[in-house]
Amino acid sequence: MAVDMASDSAQPVLEELDQEECLRLIAPGGIGRIAFEDGEGPTVVPVNYAVDGESVVFRTSLEGRVNRSLLTAVPGGQVRAAFEVDAFEVGTHEGWSVLVRGGAHPLEGEEKERAVRVDPWPGGEREAWFSLSAAEVSGRRLRRP
Amino acid sequence: MAVDMASDSAQPVLEELDQEECLRLIAPGGIGRIAFEDGEGPTVVPVNYAVDGESVVFRTSLEGRVNRSLLTAVPGGQVRAAFEVDAFEVGTHEGWSVLVRGGAHPLEGEEKERAVRVDPWPGGEREAWFSLSAAEVSGRRLRRP
Repeated sequence: MAVDMASDSAQPVLEELDQEECLRLIAPGGIGRIAFEDGEGPTVVPVNYAVDGESVVFRTSLEGRVNRSLLTAVPGGQVRAAFEVDAFEVGTHEGWSVLVRGGAHPLEGEEKERAVRVDPWPGGEREAWFSLSAAEVSGRRLRRP
Repeated sequence: MAVDMASDSAQPVLEELDQEECLRLIAPGGIGRIAFEDGEGPTVVPVNYAVDGESVVFRTSLEGRVNRSLLTAVPGGQVRAAFEVDAFEVGTHEGWSVLVRGGAHPLEGEEKERAVRVDPWPGGEREAWFSLSAAEVSGRRLRRP
């Protein structure tokens, strides 16, 4: 029987994931990273998130950088943002990542109440909520052959 | 003896980390996320990285989005980028995140050879290397009191 002795050093293979698979992978929610322009260049910070239909809802501390920047950037409007979730094995670096791009806007009133209901993680009073419309969803899986 | 029965639902506490602690946390290298403007808005993707003095070096597939965008953005120059590393406990959401902001540029020749030496993770031939100068380093620790 042939044994692939080269598998440990084999080059990793990158597979593109379709939108359905991407949405399935991020559906459980948890921690992702939101990237946006904050006036001093691109920035990226971790946030708690949940998926609500075609949108990603996330929340940040009212004192935090995300909230200040996003609220400043979008007085009543939207700001372009990118949201990333990944899961990699520390030992092998195998895993997957999903990228969601679109417009983000702060949530108020009924929209915020709905968002609170889809997020299983208990949050605090001093938090701001945002929604990112999933205009573009892409993802990749990295594995060793 | 008093037992804090409210600890599970207590509000998380955010602590700012100083630069020394931030650099210590990201020193082992591994997987981080690089955020930049790719011409269609902000984007963010996972990369392998290592720390080399005051810089973060990272590499991406030559076919990948990061490489195409960064090389296009910086013909011989630098592009503003943000690099994030985090580690959170799935159960408690306690953990830390570090953000490095500065200018990124592609590595060639001696710079690339040096970068290859500081990265303990075996890479492939078809990779592009970049360095991000740590102009700004910040971080936070999230814990339940």
